[in-house]
Amino acid sequence: MKFIKTPVKGMCDMLPADMRMREHVLGMIKESYAKYGFMQIETPVMEHIENLTSKQGGDNEKLIFKVMKRGADLQRAIDSGNQEFADNGLRYDLTVPLARYYANNKENLPTPFKALQIGNVWRADKPQKGRFRQFTQCDIDILGDDTNLAEIELIAATSDMLSQIFAEVGISEFTIHINDRRILSAIALQAGFKEEEIPSVLISLDKFDKIGLDGIHAELVENGYGEDIVECYLSVYKATESVDCAAFCSNISEKFLERSVIQNVEEIISCAKAMISDQVTISFDPTLVRGMGYYTGPIFEVSINGYNFSIAGGGRYDKMIGKFSGQDVHATGFSIGFERIITILKDKMDNGAKLGTDNLAILIAKDVPLDKKIALFKEAKTLREDGTVVTIQPMRKNVKQQITKLENEGFNNFRKIYKD
Amino acid sequence: MKFIKTPVKGMCDMLPADMRMREHVLGMIKESYAKYGFMQIETPVMEHIENLTSKQGGDNEKLIFKVMKRGADLQRAIDSGNQEFADNGLRYDLTVPLARYYANNKENLPTPFKALQIGNVWRADKPQKGRFRQFTQCDIDILGDDTNLAEIELIAATSDMLSQIFAEVGISEFTIHINDRRILSAIALQAGFKEEEIPSVLISLDKFDKIGLDGIHAELVENGYGEDIVECYLSVYKATESVDCAAFCSNISEKFLERSVIQNVEEIISCAKAMISDQVTISFDPTLVRGMGYYTGPIFEVSINGYNFSIAGGGRYDKMIGKFSGQDVHATGFSIGFERIITILKDKMDNGAKLGTDNLAILIAKDVPLDKKIALFKEAKTLREDGTVVTIQPMRKNVKQQITKLENEGFNNFRKIYKD
Repeated sequence: MKFIKTPVKGMCDMLPADMRMREHVLGMIKESYAKYGFMQIETPVMEHIENLTSKQGGDNEKLIFKVMKRGADLQRAIDSGNQEFADNGLRYDLTVPLARYYANNKENLPTPFKALQIGNVWRADKPQKGRFRQFTQCDIDILGDDTNLAEIELIAATSDMLSQIFAEVGISEFTIHINDRRILSAIALQAGFKEEEIPSVLISLDKFDKIGLDGIHAELVENGYGEDIVECYLSVYKATESVDCAAFCSNISEKFLERSVIQNVEEIISCAKAMISDQVTISFDPTLVRGMGYYTGPIFEVSINGYNFSIAGGGRYDKMIGKFSGQDVHATGFSIGFERIITILKDKMDNGAKLGTDNLAILIAKDVPLDKKIALFKEAKTLREDGTVVTIQPMRKNVKQQITKLENEGFNNFRKIYKD
Repeated sequence: MKFIKTPVKGMCDMLPADMRMREHVLGMIKESYAKYGFMQIETPVMEHIENLTSKQGGDNEKLIFKVMKRGADLQRAIDSGNQEFADNGLRYDLTVPLARYYANNKENLPTPFKALQIGNVWRADKPQKGRFRQFTQCDIDILGDDTNLAEIELIAATSDMLSQIFAEVGISEFTIHINDRRILSAIALQAGFKEEEIPSVLISLDKFDKIGLDGIHAELVENGYGEDIVECYLSVYKATESVDCAAFCSNISEKFLERSVIQNVEEIISCAKAMISDQVTISFDPTLVRGMGYYTGPIFEVSINGYNFSIAGGGRYDKMIGKFSGQDVHATGFSIGFERIITILKDKMDNGAKLGTDNLAILIAKDVPLDKKIALFKEAKTLREDGTVVTIQPMRKNVKQQITKLENEGFNNFRKIYKD
């Protein structure tokens, strides 16, 4: 019989130390958001193929793991013209399921609804270092709130959560970048780009950190836009360091940008400051784009010095749920880069999350009489009731190796029990 | 565009109250087993089809959700004779993944290895009331321990965990039944059944609680076994109430049953008693069978008065991992009926797990000035730091309904903030 020891391609087994770290971080995430009134929800890992391929998922729709219908076989599939073969797929994100969940359960949920979702997602991507076919996503969203209280609560809760997690590895400083899609659009329109050209222009601007203004200039010209318009557009982005939103937007005509958009960004920043740690920076970042096209208002991203990836990002997406469900729902969300946070913590910790120091491994030799063992069990009962981790195991021939392996898992107190 | 609001067939959305209950119970499970030195692990939800169909999974192998290969299409499948179409499937239990995991990672794990697995499994079953296609399993196993310390630790940890969970709904009494597969076999052999007839005989004996001795008698005779042999066999089971193992087995010849098997059961019972609560009964139950054929030694099951299903069950299965991986590994496991525990808790609780009483919903009217809001945010920050759950939300037109829905989720303190 063929038996394959390794996990399926692109997926991994979690060793105990991995799990301790992940569970510890997940615990902090759940606790932090709970304090802000977020409610955890869960959806099935499978979704209807129709929902997964509704054109809202971008390139991820090409990476769906399709699940064969119960009892499906090739002949039936051929007979039915492949219509009936795979009716479900594994979710590639937590947004499509959230849209379906909200449409399905809205009547039973408070408005606004503050949701926390933690779950695996699957993408049939080409596996490569650091990219897996199964990974954990963590999304927090506020649905049904058209005010900036949604952004303020989301940013404050996320900042609080990150402060707590990173405090354990001595990181107290990080930056929350904020911008607004409508400001990005207004600048492009005022420079002379057409409405339909904005997405392609923003794809270039999004590379600001990597290729700089000169690189963006070259790319836009290469893409066929005129020198004049590109020059005019990028001149706005020449001073981007520690600029405030009102000052930065002062030259944008009201024709392209309502003043309330600027006031909104400023208000989010000043209100969030009242709740986040003093060591966390929150600032307007005019070059922040966020890749996904579905954002409609304020967008935000969290970065940490020394890491060239963002660890959380999100924004307002008031039109997306409606595109799924046919009914517009105001929505603002943050997606936490859970696997990236784990990467940073592993990077900073020597040996993963450890057991507490109150632990004891009792190793019992084979010939220990029953009454002596029963006395040990009674003692172990009391120790466990007092919160000590106690494992009771048979002593192995190679007791030295046994102890070393238990030490690797964090045990540091040992008792060897012999017959006499 | 077609959008389907309901979850896929046979699976469910978890509402916030469901999740609070489940997370609460899962937290207690993790904490309890951690105190006994169990280590949480996790495997991918997908397994190789070869592993899932290796004949160890019984009828569950017919219920596999197969996952189509990346880029698979019908034509390629036809060309390849269906060989290459679905190479993975969703796991139908946590035992196959554990066997693979242990074979893959043994070198990095302590021996014995005490594993806790919590995860969803999927079965393409016909959905019906209380039976879902996605559900949570919770397995604890000790691998690499050939002594009864494995049984004792498993039973003590599981009993401790259940005592804690059920204490919250006023249940303190339950019963742990214990038997040994070798005793079941010996009785059948001594009565005159052949070795290969034992599985079918045990299928009938397993119905003791439902159809009684008369029913079993009728069924065995109907299955073609002689009146004499059936009579002789069942006479042993006439006195089964509060019988001790040694007394019950006193008439079984040593030819069929080694005395050490009896001593082992007695020792497990007396040692477990040293650790479990006084209100929990642990007793020898000669009619306990446990359905799965892979058990090789002691078997056990937990039942609660008033519920006609077991809430946990397990036993020793020293041969099964070897059948998967080619190398025998001593193994004893307990499978917790997580969904059944949730059913009992829901049955006993009025309204699901509640929020703590330290909570506050601040509802802010639209025209409240910025400085007043900032003062509120600062106050919320302090409250949250002190452990109070605080949600800040825009006040809705129908504030009465807003408050009712928040009350449903456990909020009981409200502040309405107006302009003046």
